Amino acid sequence: MLKAMLKVRRVPIDTHSENVAFLRRDCTQYTVEGLRALAKIEVHGGRRHLLATLNLVEANGNGAHALLGTDELGLSTEAFARLGLPAGAEVSIEPAPPPGSLESVRRKINGAVLTPDNYRAIIEDISDHRYSRMELAAFLVASAGFMTTEEVLALTQAMVEVGQRLTWPMDMVVDKHCIGGIPGNRTTMIVVPIVAAHGLAIPKTSSRAITSPAGTADTMEVLCNVTVDLDHMRHIIAEEKGCLVWGGHMRLAPADDILISVERPLGIDTQEQMVASILSKKVSAGSTHLLIDIPMGPQAKVRSQVEAVRLRKMFEFVGDALGLNLEVAITDGRQPIGRGIGPVLEARDAMAVLRCDLDAPQDLREKSILLAGRVLEFDPAVRGGQGVRLAREILDDGRALAKMERIMAAQGPAPVLGLQPGPLTRDVVAPADGVVVNMDCARLNHIARLAGCPMDKGSGIDLLQSVGDRVRKGDPLYRIHACRPADFGFATAAADDGIGVIVG
Amino acid sequence: MLKAMLKVRRVPIDTHSENVAFLRRDCTQYTVEGLRALAKIEVHGGRRHLLATLNLVEANGNGAHALLGTDELGLSTEAFARLGLPAGAEVSIEPAPPPGSLESVRRKINGAVLTPDNYRAIIEDISDHRYSRMELAAFLVASAGFMTTEEVLALTQAMVEVGQRLTWPMDMVVDKHCIGGIPGNRTTMIVVPIVAAHGLAIPKTSSRAITSPAGTADTMEVLCNVTVDLDHMRHIIAEEKGCLVWGGHMRLAPADDILISVERPLGIDTQEQMVASILSKKVSAGSTHLLIDIPMGPQAKVRSQVEAVRLRKMFEFVGDALGLNLEVAITDGRQPIGRGIGPVLEARDAMAVLRCDLDAPQDLREKSILLAGRVLEFDPAVRGGQGVRLAREILDDGRALAKMERIMAAQGPAPVLGLQPGPLTRDVVAPADGVVVNMDCARLNHIARLAGCPMDKGSGIDLLQSVGDRVRKGDPLYRIHACRPADFGFATAAADDGIGVIVG
Repeated sequence: MLKAMLKVRRVPIDTHSENVAFLRRDCTQYTVEGLRALAKIEVHGGRRHLLATLNLVEANGNGAHALLGTDELGLSTEAFARLGLPAGAEVSIEPAPPPGSLESVRRKINGAVLTPDNYRAIIEDISDHRYSRMELAAFLVASAGFMTTEEVLALTQAMVEVGQRLTWPMDMVVDKHCIGGIPGNRTTMIVVPIVAAHGLAIPKTSSRAITSPAGTADTMEVLCNVTVDLDHMRHIIAEEKGCLVWGGHMRLAPADDILISVERPLGIDTQEQMVASILSKKVSAGSTHLLIDIPMGPQAKVRSQVEAVRLRKMFEFVGDALGLNLEVAITDGRQPIGRGIGPVLEARDAMAVLRCDLDAPQDLREKSILLAGRVLEFDPAVRGGQGVRLAREILDDGRALAKMERIMAAQGPAPVLGLQPGPLTRDVVAPADGVVVNMDCARLNHIARLAGCPMDKGSGIDLLQSVGDRVRKGDPLYRIHACRPADFGFATAAADDGIGVIVG
Repeated sequence: MLKAMLKVRRVPIDTHSENVAFLRRDCTQYTVEGLRALAKIEVHGGRRHLLATLNLVEANGNGAHALLGTDELGLSTEAFARLGLPAGAEVSIEPAPPPGSLESVRRKINGAVLTPDNYRAIIEDISDHRYSRMELAAFLVASAGFMTTEEVLALTQAMVEVGQRLTWPMDMVVDKHCIGGIPGNRTTMIVVPIVAAHGLAIPKTSSRAITSPAGTADTMEVLCNVTVDLDHMRHIIAEEKGCLVWGGHMRLAPADDILISVERPLGIDTQEQMVASILSKKVSAGSTHLLIDIPMGPQAKVRSQVEAVRLRKMFEFVGDALGLNLEVAITDGRQPIGRGIGPVLEARDAMAVLRCDLDAPQDLREKSILLAGRVLEFDPAVRGGQGVRLAREILDDGRALAKMERIMAAQGPAPVLGLQPGPLTRDVVAPADGVVVNMDCARLNHIARLAGCPMDKGSGIDLLQSVGDRVRKGDPLYRIHACRPADFGFATAAADDGIGVIVG
């Protein structure tokens, strides 16, 4: 076949996880309009090739510097890196058919039950960045229509198989995971040192926030380094039994990260996709025993006992089929846990609990003890029913704090030292006398995000009251912290629109 | 609220119909990572504002010319035009919540039946370019799950209401529309002059090809101008009763064009969306009487009588509710109609039929007469059952050709004169002796697209055999025409992979 050659060029645009190629509309070698309608092109250079979505670039009519020459092919930042050729290298392009597994997506749209092989093909194509965000949305929405429990299992298995899978020298590797949605709630930073101090291996890999104000990785990073490679992590686990590191660069179930990048902005949050996402990550991380925390409340992800039980059973079915020892704890999800919302403020709360400060948030302390107790009971040597007592003892006698300090030292110093709550503050006050009857978790998360979370780690919300507290008009309910004037403006304006706390 | 100002700049990238804004990752005024997760921003400048999806631009580390300054906001070609401010004008940005109607999309994903008000809000947001392609995909796939007939009606009505609606001075305005999928099949260019010659008003607005090798507008543009404004179109209809113009710039059901730009690449083609798309366009164009052509065949869009009847009833239900006089013709969709696939080759066939050339494609002639006859019977003055006889008469006595020539003269000369079939040709031959038993419409369309259709109007496929013809090994089955070497390479390589014709 005749191949017209183009020079490859990096176009410094972050197109999320989608490969995007740029071609001048007045490119002389190719009929670009024909390519555009096909939407996807295959780029060939040397022995390398890449699938990308084609965007057309106009000639700059106003005499300004052109983005691309007529003989160039631009690639977005990540696509350029994935192709791995130097700038100026010669490449050819050809129209690419859509990924073969899209045919299964179309069948799913039409109501089909897909086979494990279908899911494998879909997840392989997604991991290889062969799906556009539009195609990812189509797969997610079609799956949200319905999935059998067997399909959830097949999807989870496919996500595990396409990615790295960690193994550990010990027989028992425990973990805990919360399905999310509750502001604060940074129990992991307390559970891990308690469990590790007891002697169970808990090599915790956490995510950074995607649409929440803080992930555990963001919060731990206030205190120490979290970007730890696998060899270093193995060393820490051998020495300390526990760690709290960022899992994002370990290629654990990589398709999951790509799916989440579309799920979150669309607000798709089905139980089926949640189960596949969480369990694929945990199995990939080498866990053998897993405690799932399902907060239940009127504004939580799970709002009723019926929903909670349905979700619990789905976790159990898929977990059992994957050979996990899985337990589910249904917890109180009616309000935030702890006082801080945002990395610095949440790290402060967790350390206060570990230090057994008298004014440490009691709800965070008690929930952490409860969860740690459930995890400890995975240990055959712990007498049934004694987990909670044991967890409380490890926390109260300072072993958990000592373990946390050793873990932090082993992971290394934080990238930025001495982070403080953001200096721009505003107290949001009670509009009337009364009792705090409700805190809207979604609204408080939203305001904290606008204040700069999770990027500006000192930004966020510090809660000064809890549900049930009696307040007088003008009493502060919470304090907004921000680091930049524009973000401070966004957050305070949002609080003016709706404070997210009902006093009645 | 504090507003940090940025200078607006046009980034010459065609992002289809989606507004895209570009901001440097190292922008000093805004915490861009926080904005990115929110995905959408509202751009304010003077009294103008615009919703856009935010892409982050990296600083160019290699010393090359930066795409944007740290104090600039880039806007994609169409977004810059929509905002309407000069380059360098000051703008501020703020995080924008997703379009309000996405909440209805989420309910649809969860299985809800939406109200007419829900559909109105969705279609208004789509027309205002407030949906990303990912969000459009979510709406389309959720709707593809199921829609009640009442929902199809509500969607159609919303698409009509949000857009321009043409009115005509005559009581009866007729039209015909084929649901598509059959290569060639350019009957419209024969039906319109027959019907107009009889004296019925048929102000035909057609689309350009999106994923097919040629639309009627592309094919008519080989012969004459098709970019006609509304006043000129009214004048032509007053004089000639018929025209064949491009409808794309008339804002007829504009949401439909946006939905199609996502439907086509995803291959979503449900009957519900087809009915809403076609009928919203026709009602917007002011049609009172409409003939729908549903080709049925093993590789056509409609593959069985059961499907055809279901689709016919849906057209009838929605058409009746909208006050249209609607008839449905179920036709033979087992193979291409006519010989040419591609604008120049199809225009050649249509003119051969109008001139009553002895070697004109008889299948195109007979199908056009049949459809024109059905349209003519909308006229109360035509005796029942006499439409086909009348259509044949108007074609055979030269009135249709004369009318076509007057319409072409009225629309003005083609933008490029004297177009010929592409000079690069290759004959694809029979692999064995036998009878042509099948022609794969989708495969032939695909090869014609690769050859350069519809942009290079002379490119495409010229069929040299029909289903049922007896051939010997080596006899040419069809000829590929292309204008550019790269396209010629793509098309011939695709034909090498599968010729799309079965000889058995």
